[in-house]
Amino acid sequence: MRTERETMFRHVVLLAWTPDATDEQKAAVLTALGTLPGAIPQIRSYAFGADAGVSPGNHDLAIVADFDDAEDYAVYRDHPVHQAVIAERIKPILASRAAVQFEV
Amino acid sequence: MRTERETMFRHVVLLAWTPDATDEQKAAVLTALGTLPGAIPQIRSYAFGADAGVSPGNHDLAIVADFDDAEDYAVYRDHPVHQAVIAERIKPILASRAAVQFEV
Repeated sequence: MRTERETMFRHVVLLAWTPDATDEQKAAVLTALGTLPGAIPQIRSYAFGADAGVSPGNHDLAIVADFDDAEDYAVYRDHPVHQAVIAERIKPILASRAAVQFEV
Repeated sequence: MRTERETMFRHVVLLAWTPDATDEQKAAVLTALGTLPGAIPQIRSYAFGADAGVSPGNHDLAIVADFDDAEDYAVYRDHPVHQAVIAERIKPILASRAAVQFEV
């Protein structure tokens, strides 16, 4: 579904943290994610945030990232700065992950 | 994280279908979702789409919906037209659901 502009390739990922994840670890993920738009020029739009806590059973963090096309998404996916955030900040506290990519 | 405009309340949901869900059932969900922005004026932006199939293990459908605030999201969540789509189109083929609401 197109909403505002030309076709984009949107990556949506929802993450849930382990019960023993600390507030510091969760905050470090947000800080690290905030560095990605400056490091990966293929990112056209990047929104993320911790769950607002209004719905029981939710995951804990959402990322919505827009790219020009699937190729630019793949650059982001495999980018070493992104991979470092995953390995160093996300994986140590990751309990569950759900993702979809779709054209908007 | 704010990207383009004033603060919004974003609802992100990822759905996975049962193995026996038919193409017709999956298409009927998309058609039904397309009626919601016209039926629920609290929806400020509504993007959804079937997974592009570029990543193994993904969920099957994403919905990204923006509202002015959590109260408007709650109107959408509980709206009878939305609840009918869930009951009649989504629930019969739903295998898994993940959601996050966050401020953008």
